[in-house]
Amino acid sequence: MAKNLSVSLLMDFYGGLLTDKQKEAVELYYNQDFSLSEIAETMDISRQGARDFIKRGENQLIEFENILGLYKRFSEICYEFSGITEELSKLDGMQLSQAATEHISNIKQIIKRIENNL
Amino acid sequence: MAKNLSVSLLMDFYGGLLTDKQKEAVELYYNQDFSLSEIAETMDISRQGARDFIKRGENQLIEFENILGLYKRFSEICYEFSGITEELSKLDGMQLSQAATEHISNIKQIIKRIENNL
Repeated sequence: MAKNLSVSLLMDFYGGLLTDKQKEAVELYYNQDFSLSEIAETMDISRQGARDFIKRGENQLIEFENILGLYKRFSEICYEFSGITEELSKLDGMQLSQAATEHISNIKQIIKRIENNL
Repeated sequence: MAKNLSVSLLMDFYGGLLTDKQKEAVELYYNQDFSLSEIAETMDISRQGARDFIKRGENQLIEFENILGLYKRFSEICYEFSGITEELSKLDGMQLSQAATEHISNIKQIIKRIENNL
């Protein structure tokens, strides 16, 4: 069963809306890298049952994103952030007053906080 | 019936997950400022029915935020942004090289794009 790389990212956004079983199966498969057989054993279900929970979970996550698009909104912000970080790094080698350097350092700290929060 | 100010904000995030009727009632009430009677007439339901759709919609939106917390995540980013904008404005009066001024102006443009996207 092919892994869809965006599923772990979508889990971080919409995982709370899955059923407990779907959440458990998707987490074991995507975040813990369990095989279908290992998930089946852990959850005390059949291998086909494990596959079904994962598939249904994946489809739900994709459906939530299609409806709400919040992951896309966050990703676009992340992309713009890389632009800010790039511009700030270009200021690094420049001769600036102490006051200006301080303000830029404050901005870098804020950016770091936001990135940790994204 | 008291209006909960955060409901319109939550609608922007999770409105897509409400039923069509809930969405319509909540939108008319919060975004178009319709009265319960006007909503009842527009949707061809009773006043009590209108109230029920709004209440259930509101509760759903609050529940989605309790589970996912994505509005809180966005709000925290917005709050941090005001800090960046403040630091950038302090650089405005300073003597900076043309190159530095350009990089800062690029950052301001990116911030504006992000704010329009939030």
